[in-house]
Amino acid sequence: MEFDVIVIGAGPAGENVVGRAVRGGLSAAIVEDRLAGGECSYWACVPSKALLRPVDLAGEVRRVPGLSVGPIDVAAVLARRDEAVAHYDDGGQVRWIEGVPAEFVKGRGRLDGPRRVRVTTDDGEERVLTARHAVVLATGSTAVLPPVPGLAEAAPWTSHEVTAATAVPERLAVIGGGVVACEMAQAMHGLGARQTTVLVRGDALLARMEPFARELLAESFAEAGIDVRTRTDVVGVERPEPGGKVTVHLSDGPPLEADELLVATGRRAATAGLGLDTVGLPADAPVEVDDTLRATGVPEGWLYAVGDVNGRVLLTHMGKYQARICGDVIAARARGEEPGGLRDLAGGYGAPQVVFTDPQICSVGRTEEAARAAGFRVRAVEYDLGAVTGAYLLGDGYRGRAKAVVDEDRGVLLGVTFAGPGAAELLHAATIAVTGEVPLDRLWHAVPSFPTVSEVWLRLLETYGL
Amino acid sequence: MEFDVIVIGAGPAGENVVGRAVRGGLSAAIVEDRLAGGECSYWACVPSKALLRPVDLAGEVRRVPGLSVGPIDVAAVLARRDEAVAHYDDGGQVRWIEGVPAEFVKGRGRLDGPRRVRVTTDDGEERVLTARHAVVLATGSTAVLPPVPGLAEAAPWTSHEVTAATAVPERLAVIGGGVVACEMAQAMHGLGARQTTVLVRGDALLARMEPFARELLAESFAEAGIDVRTRTDVVGVERPEPGGKVTVHLSDGPPLEADELLVATGRRAATAGLGLDTVGLPADAPVEVDDTLRATGVPEGWLYAVGDVNGRVLLTHMGKYQARICGDVIAARARGEEPGGLRDLAGGYGAPQVVFTDPQICSVGRTEEAARAAGFRVRAVEYDLGAVTGAYLLGDGYRGRAKAVVDEDRGVLLGVTFAGPGAAELLHAATIAVTGEVPLDRLWHAVPSFPTVSEVWLRLLETYGL
Repeated sequence: MEFDVIVIGAGPAGENVVGRAVRGGLSAAIVEDRLAGGECSYWACVPSKALLRPVDLAGEVRRVPGLSVGPIDVAAVLARRDEAVAHYDDGGQVRWIEGVPAEFVKGRGRLDGPRRVRVTTDDGEERVLTARHAVVLATGSTAVLPPVPGLAEAAPWTSHEVTAATAVPERLAVIGGGVVACEMAQAMHGLGARQTTVLVRGDALLARMEPFARELLAESFAEAGIDVRTRTDVVGVERPEPGGKVTVHLSDGPPLEADELLVATGRRAATAGLGLDTVGLPADAPVEVDDTLRATGVPEGWLYAVGDVNGRVLLTHMGKYQARICGDVIAARARGEEPGGLRDLAGGYGAPQVVFTDPQICSVGRTEEAARAAGFRVRAVEYDLGAVTGAYLLGDGYRGRAKAVVDEDRGVLLGVTFAGPGAAELLHAATIAVTGEVPLDRLWHAVPSFPTVSEVWLRLLETYGL
Repeated sequence: MEFDVIVIGAGPAGENVVGRAVRGGLSAAIVEDRLAGGECSYWACVPSKALLRPVDLAGEVRRVPGLSVGPIDVAAVLARRDEAVAHYDDGGQVRWIEGVPAEFVKGRGRLDGPRRVRVTTDDGEERVLTARHAVVLATGSTAVLPPVPGLAEAAPWTSHEVTAATAVPERLAVIGGGVVACEMAQAMHGLGARQTTVLVRGDALLARMEPFARELLAESFAEAGIDVRTRTDVVGVERPEPGGKVTVHLSDGPPLEADELLVATGRRAATAGLGLDTVGLPADAPVEVDDTLRATGVPEGWLYAVGDVNGRVLLTHMGKYQARICGDVIAARARGEEPGGLRDLAGGYGAPQVVFTDPQICSVGRTEEAARAAGFRVRAVEYDLGAVTGAYLLGDGYRGRAKAVVDEDRGVLLGVTFAGPGAAELLHAATIAVTGEVPLDRLWHAVPSFPTVSEVWLRLLETYGL
């Protein structure tokens, strides 16, 4: 069968490509061997937030005198998680795709030379699709297991399994210190794990965030009783019985016993078996793309890649953003137009990101360190969120902090980081300010409402001297 | 005594004038006959939010499966309210003023001819202060009682008394349908008033908000069991015993009995006894000012007015914003400079405002109706907040809505309104977009993080066709 556009991978990014390309007048097929909706909908962002929300909210309640919260009913939380992932049924997503309208092709897709996609169905049948205009790779990424002896054999949890947990382990060991490790350590601990140990190779949790945010998170973990061990190398893992007790051997100190082990040490572009070699690309690397999301080094430029598989930014919303551009670009080029303003601009500013821990940590643009390293003339200001009246009114002992990184030459923001309870929704203001390059002397007239936490914007500008 | 600047009224606006003027190199005195910190700190924004927070948060908890909240401990809520208002002790605020440094003058201040302020202390002494450069009026506003027979005699609550309540009345009648009426009806009802009746003269609560927001609020009130009666005129009030039962006579239907009556029908600039006549201004009207906050019609331009008393926008944060401009302007003019960019720009766009009801309702800029009336070529788009994944993950049955009003000629936002639980912190993004006049095709690149409620920005732009 022939389509204008063929997308491999029906996660949020792939779905958005199809939506935009069809809106642009093209026909499209989307190939998926697992569930339409992708990792994000079933085994990442969505279920993790469903697990975190009650833990997070219980924390908020504890800070408000006069309110009390009962023990968390874990079964009810897991049931709502199941609802949030549609009970792992992709019927609704498939209907959405068909309604675009686009063809949903169930099976494993791989490139088979220029503009050709070979699909293998579950029962082993093969089908070849050809694309008139473009093939788009949107296969996402997969969790990486570090090469620790015994680790793979222990069949540890990754993000996939922890977000789908049907029970909370008594003792959880976590290898990694990034977003998944932090969020899921906190979720499992808040839902009742009695011993949660986070084993971090480097110096800190969330190593790429501003230092103050890392510190606030470390304090919060310590207060919650989560044992974070930095500069810790895992040298071996033993799990004699499948699903049984795990022993984690460390480079230093006694081994750690746990009932479950979560590995969250990074992800790799899902290119294995994707047939990249059939079109002259390296088989085992992210697919390099230009700012129109078109793969570089492919003659006639018919191949695109969006989302995690291109290795640009491993965040769902950035994958979707790339996908909107990509779908529009393909439609424009199909009409013989060059896609002027349709380019990935946001990635260049530094993608917005929210970590749904307590405190929530969110940032957009560059950290101070990154901005200096990139050669900007920088001044950074910080402000204690807890000193903002709007934050005080949210609860006793509200702790948080904000930081703005200013480009002194242009008078615009290069980056903003917030850490604090409920900070997630503060971020978009910063994203607009950074991406919109709104001058500071205009931001000065954007008056935050009293008494909101957003008043920190006023305090940051005052601290800066405006 | 002589100062460069004399401010009458030590609320947030007055304090900010002093802070900025002194930063600009001037000496300053600030005169206050009640508490330094002003209405906002003790009898308005701050205590009202302290009362609303537990009610609001209990509502959030009820939407999260697996969490349960106990009954609200009203005594603990009132105790925290007392803490939030510093137990009505202004020592901290006075110390702040003295630390600016500025002179805190306790007493009732009034104009006494050009550049002269006469202060009467509590024990009747009089003192005359003279200003080298400027006198700034920052006396705020006072609640207005409508001329209903028996109403004044009944000594009803206004915002002042309800926010300072030491007990929750069993049956509360509220006259008015604006912000104070809505917030306090919901607070008192949530804290245990068993019969709460809101008597609204017009067609709806929050008449100046977008229609969808008014409807969501009305639904919420109905579900909570708050009795809202629109198109209702109060024709008489009886309260035979001071502090006893109140009978409210309506133009239509049987009289309403209540244990307490809250009147929230608007506010009037606090100019009574301010000596405006001694400088040739009408004694009983808001003080008209230009965009530098300087009073119009006063020879030599030494008089300024900030905050509620100038009648521009009766919102604390706007008063503070005006005050920052005013203090800087006075300092600039004292140096012989004309204050170029120092002008009230924000007011012209349409002030941001948050109503802390459930749902929270917030808006900035113009409503669709106001934008059309002002002659803009307008297109408005709306989106169901409950359909945003980030909102769904906050709780079952999250209901809310967003609306953006676009200037079709310039491709910028004229106004944005959000209504939904926790919507308050969504607003500042809109305030930056509106005030920064960030073009829609740049906003398109400001990617909201997934899964936040802010993703509604993406949906609004998609709905618009971008």
